[in-house]
Amino acid sequence: MSINLADIERAAERIAPYAERTPVLRNAALDARTGAQLAFKCENLQRAGAFKFRGACNAVMALADHIAARGVVTHSAGNHGAALALAAHLRGIPAHIVVPEGTVKSKAEAIREYGAALHFCAPTLAARELECERIRRQTGATLVHPFTDPGVIAGQGTAALELIQELGTLDIIMTPISGGGLIGGTAIAARALLPEAAVFAAEPEGAADAMESLRRGERVTDVVPDTICDGLRASIGAVNFVLLQEYGVRVLPVSDAQTIAAMRLIFERLKLVVEPSSATVLAAVLRHREHFVGKQVGLVLSGGNVDLDRLPWQNGRD
Amino acid sequence: MSINLADIERAAERIAPYAERTPVLRNAALDARTGAQLAFKCENLQRAGAFKFRGACNAVMALADHIAARGVVTHSAGNHGAALALAAHLRGIPAHIVVPEGTVKSKAEAIREYGAALHFCAPTLAARELECERIRRQTGATLVHPFTDPGVIAGQGTAALELIQELGTLDIIMTPISGGGLIGGTAIAARALLPEAAVFAAEPEGAADAMESLRRGERVTDVVPDTICDGLRASIGAVNFVLLQEYGVRVLPVSDAQTIAAMRLIFERLKLVVEPSSATVLAAVLRHREHFVGKQVGLVLSGGNVDLDRLPWQNGRD
Repeated sequence: MSINLADIERAAERIAPYAERTPVLRNAALDARTGAQLAFKCENLQRAGAFKFRGACNAVMALADHIAARGVVTHSAGNHGAALALAAHLRGIPAHIVVPEGTVKSKAEAIREYGAALHFCAPTLAARELECERIRRQTGATLVHPFTDPGVIAGQGTAALELIQELGTLDIIMTPISGGGLIGGTAIAARALLPEAAVFAAEPEGAADAMESLRRGERVTDVVPDTICDGLRASIGAVNFVLLQEYGVRVLPVSDAQTIAAMRLIFERLKLVVEPSSATVLAAVLRHREHFVGKQVGLVLSGGNVDLDRLPWQNGRD
Repeated sequence: MSINLADIERAAERIAPYAERTPVLRNAALDARTGAQLAFKCENLQRAGAFKFRGACNAVMALADHIAARGVVTHSAGNHGAALALAAHLRGIPAHIVVPEGTVKSKAEAIREYGAALHFCAPTLAARELECERIRRQTGATLVHPFTDPGVIAGQGTAALELIQELGTLDIIMTPISGGGLIGGTAIAARALLPEAAVFAAEPEGAADAMESLRRGERVTDVVPDTICDGLRASIGAVNFVLLQEYGVRVLPVSDAQTIAAMRLIFERLKLVVEPSSATVLAAVLRHREHFVGKQVGLVLSGGNVDLDRLPWQNGRD
């Protein structure tokens, strides 16, 4: 698979009528605290509440009419599921979203709101893939994988494209890492536009398969995730791991406690509602300060879908 | 007092090097829910977390050097106090902020953080004014009143100026109302730029002195505020009341329960951290739907300074 800047630029054109060009915010207090110049790309303000809409929208809008007509299918109870449902709704085609039994009701509702068909299955990877495959064969729907699909990776790269266009220059760009769609697209855009810039990814210690994969030089897939970052529990994809190696992405670990503290800072200082996954990037700047002092740093806040009845710094108060 | 569009435009130039040009956000779900096209001017993302910085900054930067050197003084434990402290800090002059004993520690800290001198006094209007006067005489500092100062009113009008510039047109513009600085500047800008647009203000039922003043045709100052909107407890100022009458501003009441529900919607849908005062405008659109259906509506989200340990929809859970 070879994705390049032209693919990301085409994705940007394709999604422009549908996606938000999200604002980039700065904050003097956070700059003072970190010793860096931070620019936050607010994908929590993206449609459906996360950057995931970029990739899903690009994949859906790129389908030929006769293929699109048969619909799309994926397995995700999270932001990719909602994003694909919205993208399919906007194109006027069916979406089938496979979610594990026991999915939080509000998440299932968000997907249903966009008019998608929900399919429940047992909460194992095997069961989800089997159910996706069954639907695909039955309906002819196209599988849109949350992070290995080339159209998805190119779409995710549009956030970095916009951030770099807006800032003109930066020394470091960083996103959270999970399956590797966002960091993959980001690395491709950054290398092409700012070859001198360093590309970092923030990863929860409790789901540090990407860091471990880079250390070992081979993809690790047996990490059992244990992190508050519900958007970062997937293992790095095979094509995504190749991108990490090829583009020299450095992965920085953060603890959940650091993520929660950073999330609270983002609420307090940036006045933004973000989900824990988003906060890993600020947590990484605060923990690994030595890489960032004196630097212009672009950070992607990945999403804002969080349970407002149970903000993590309030645990223990119930 | 006569303030006009030119004053607001001069204020916009004066504060441009210091203030944020805050983003304007839209949301498809909230449009669907209200039947209107809503555009939110995000003053919660303004420096010091509220629109108050616009007025304070304009007042401070307009002072002649020899007067500015003696400093500024005001009484406010809230957003105006913090905004004036920051503006004075940016100009490099002393700020004296009079706050009532018993002020929440985090608010006092926010003011101190900007380098202002805090002066505590008894929690009555008389005591606060006496202490301001004492400081003024002792130091020669200039009083910057939170909402009757013409420079403050012109500064607050810059939020509407930017909103109208960005949208091009709108049918209705609405802000929260308390002392009347924000709605005053907004009405002046709107009348000059969009003479056909209606100007509304959202007011808590528990502090509805502006609505009652308009009804009686004379300023009511004996309302004892009882509302969760800590930014909206002041009584309408004398010059501000004249502006309300002159510009035909219509005041719409909202209950605290409606404000809390709207605040939660803003967190959930717009992914923005706002304080209760900000949410009154969305609450008013939802309650007084008949005025807004089918209309282009500009809403000013006034601020984002809220206690994150105690979000109001979580009351009763402690």
